[in-house]
Amino acid sequence: MKLTLSNPSVAGTEKLEQCAAIWRTLAGNPRYRGDVGWLHCRSATAGVLPAIIEKAGQWRDMADTLVLIGVGGSNQAARGMIDALGSKHMEVIYAGNTLSAYEVERTLSILESRDVCVHVIAKNFETLEPGIWYRVLRQWMARKYSKEEYARRIVLTGTEGSRMHQMARENGHMFLPFPNDIGGRYSAFTPVALLPVATAGISVDEYLAGGEKMEASLAVEAEHEAFVYAAWRNHYHQIGFDVEMLCTFEPRLERLACWWRQLFGESEGKNGKGIFPVYSVYSEDLHSIGQYIQQGKKNVMETFLCVKDVGASATVPEDTASHDGFDYLEGQDFASVNHAAQVATWEAHTVGGVPCAAIEVDRIDAYHFGALYYFFMAACAVSSSLLGVHPFDQEGVEAYKRSMFRALGKQS
Amino acid sequence: MKLTLSNPSVAGTEKLEQCAAIWRTLAGNPRYRGDVGWLHCRSATAGVLPAIIEKAGQWRDMADTLVLIGVGGSNQAARGMIDALGSKHMEVIYAGNTLSAYEVERTLSILESRDVCVHVIAKNFETLEPGIWYRVLRQWMARKYSKEEYARRIVLTGTEGSRMHQMARENGHMFLPFPNDIGGRYSAFTPVALLPVATAGISVDEYLAGGEKMEASLAVEAEHEAFVYAAWRNHYHQIGFDVEMLCTFEPRLERLACWWRQLFGESEGKNGKGIFPVYSVYSEDLHSIGQYIQQGKKNVMETFLCVKDVGASATVPEDTASHDGFDYLEGQDFASVNHAAQVATWEAHTVGGVPCAAIEVDRIDAYHFGALYYFFMAACAVSSSLLGVHPFDQEGVEAYKRSMFRALGKQS
Repeated sequence: MKLTLSNPSVAGTEKLEQCAAIWRTLAGNPRYRGDVGWLHCRSATAGVLPAIIEKAGQWRDMADTLVLIGVGGSNQAARGMIDALGSKHMEVIYAGNTLSAYEVERTLSILESRDVCVHVIAKNFETLEPGIWYRVLRQWMARKYSKEEYARRIVLTGTEGSRMHQMARENGHMFLPFPNDIGGRYSAFTPVALLPVATAGISVDEYLAGGEKMEASLAVEAEHEAFVYAAWRNHYHQIGFDVEMLCTFEPRLERLACWWRQLFGESEGKNGKGIFPVYSVYSEDLHSIGQYIQQGKKNVMETFLCVKDVGASATVPEDTASHDGFDYLEGQDFASVNHAAQVATWEAHTVGGVPCAAIEVDRIDAYHFGALYYFFMAACAVSSSLLGVHPFDQEGVEAYKRSMFRALGKQS
Repeated sequence: MKLTLSNPSVAGTEKLEQCAAIWRTLAGNPRYRGDVGWLHCRSATAGVLPAIIEKAGQWRDMADTLVLIGVGGSNQAARGMIDALGSKHMEVIYAGNTLSAYEVERTLSILESRDVCVHVIAKNFETLEPGIWYRVLRQWMARKYSKEEYARRIVLTGTEGSRMHQMARENGHMFLPFPNDIGGRYSAFTPVALLPVATAGISVDEYLAGGEKMEASLAVEAEHEAFVYAAWRNHYHQIGFDVEMLCTFEPRLERLACWWRQLFGESEGKNGKGIFPVYSVYSEDLHSIGQYIQQGKKNVMETFLCVKDVGASATVPEDTASHDGFDYLEGQDFASVNHAAQVATWEAHTVGGVPCAAIEVDRIDAYHFGALYYFFMAACAVSSSLLGVHPFDQEGVEAYKRSMFRALGKQS
């Protein structure tokens, strides 16, 4: 992985030392006790990994559709990876992430003709969306399948000892723990993400190896790129850049950007502080938000997520007869045209006064997803601490929940 | 349509009069000459509407897939509507909106088994994405179909007298004009959007009727809600709210929000000014960016896009035996739970100091899409003028294009 900054000098020695010190002391910081289980990639899955792999294999043999019921941190990491790497063996449908009746109708109508298994994920089993979707889906599954089939086609992931844990025992479902010391948005290396990813046929081994490699490099490099990234964005935020836009020229990385937005938005947006995170898919969005970036108010910094070898090829064909004005691209690969667009955008935006950073990975694969997820989680924990906010809580989300529970007549 | 503001007093009489005056003089403003063809819904299609309807019917009879080749203003309005209202007769695939080789590979592999027709849209036939996708797709179509089939399965939409117009004549394709006096992001009522929408089986009559109704109301109401909306956002922008987030509780409206983002971002983001437009799909994103909105830096205003009757129903089923903690919702419809979530979010965010506006339509249908598109285009033209920027140009988009053309060796 390679990080490039349009203005490298802003990540100065002093700030980098501060970042490194935050990272070194993160695990031992008493404020963060009970929140840093994610620091060691392997720790959350050590005991259950073989069972996850086995279950994923069984599901691939018996079903064509996986319904992932989860919202927020409970689906983003898996979805980011499955959207980018594909799922050869079964389609993954996301549910429990909306209250729209239209989406319930739509999902049930799609499932009618499918052979289905269901992974329900809810750390807090009070969250409305997964809670009531699970009700709908479990009754639907019970009608469709025998008792034995019903049992093995559903896996529950939640807090150990919770009511959900008990329901797993009562119905013979496999239960995978949502670790107590890991929050939703830091759960990329827990069963939350690993079962769906393994079911999609993506190598969990390579994924964990990518995370571990990043973890190891953070332990030894004093000026690690995660610190440089954290220092860079903190610097520009301090001088008035309130929005950070993550942009990618590969549409299949949109959901990774969506994961990133949750990670940073929920970690930093508190105490009246925070960089507002948004994402864009270029080149399409250059024809949309690109105008604002180039000439609008100068409050947006831009982080490019780049891929060296996109692993795909398509040639602009010859067509000398048509005189369509695109002869100058004949024989070029879309991949190199796309790369030229990326370089041109970087150039135009930096000249236009936009602070730019580029994070480049070699390929889009499980290994690099592991590396990227760990990189961003580390950078986010450090960034939030630099800003002086707690990286692991989310009190603000509770406000609308309280208001909603009241409106819906829930007894507290 | 109904507009509600958390703080109605900010849209004061003076600013509303200013908005009304801008609107009254828009058509006659010499700066905007050549850009305001969209003001009259029917003017852009009067001559070609019957041909569009006929072609759409033919295509529905002969094909199962429509490929829409277009980027920016050339696909957003149609996509917004088709995503929300569905397409019963054929799948619509969007192309020409990315340079990713992976997406080219993926699209061609999907098309292999399909019966295809293609609508190519490019006002400026120099734009890279639609230009080179059209090359790829026309050769693919020519290999797959007879000369006669090839001719009638492709429609080109561009500037009259352009090279594209000539190519339509040479190949026997139908040509639909992209009006000279309408920019891409204001093209919702032109052939650009109407042919795809009609092909998807959506009523163009109802759609145009919705636009016309809004157009008529703007001509007579001095304190029209489009002016109130423009005045409201301008007020908060002036006191430091630099971001506007359009949010919807119906996931199928995401692409409408995406259209909105282009409209406002490209119209307002210039001369170092502009409100940065973003969108969110709730309730999912409440578990993501919701934390920032509630407790983060107070620089975001929130515009809720609401629907009175969502036209769908799904009941939270009874399950007294499970003790899952959701008994309090038994028998309730998802639609009313979703509505409660919306009310609770509005309450929590306004109490948290977020300026909120709600735009409510009765239903999600073609008529209300017409009304909404016209409403937002009018509000955007007025907003941009209030801000002192030109609502209809986009010089900033040209900067990266120049840089890219240079890199790709294009002769100017």
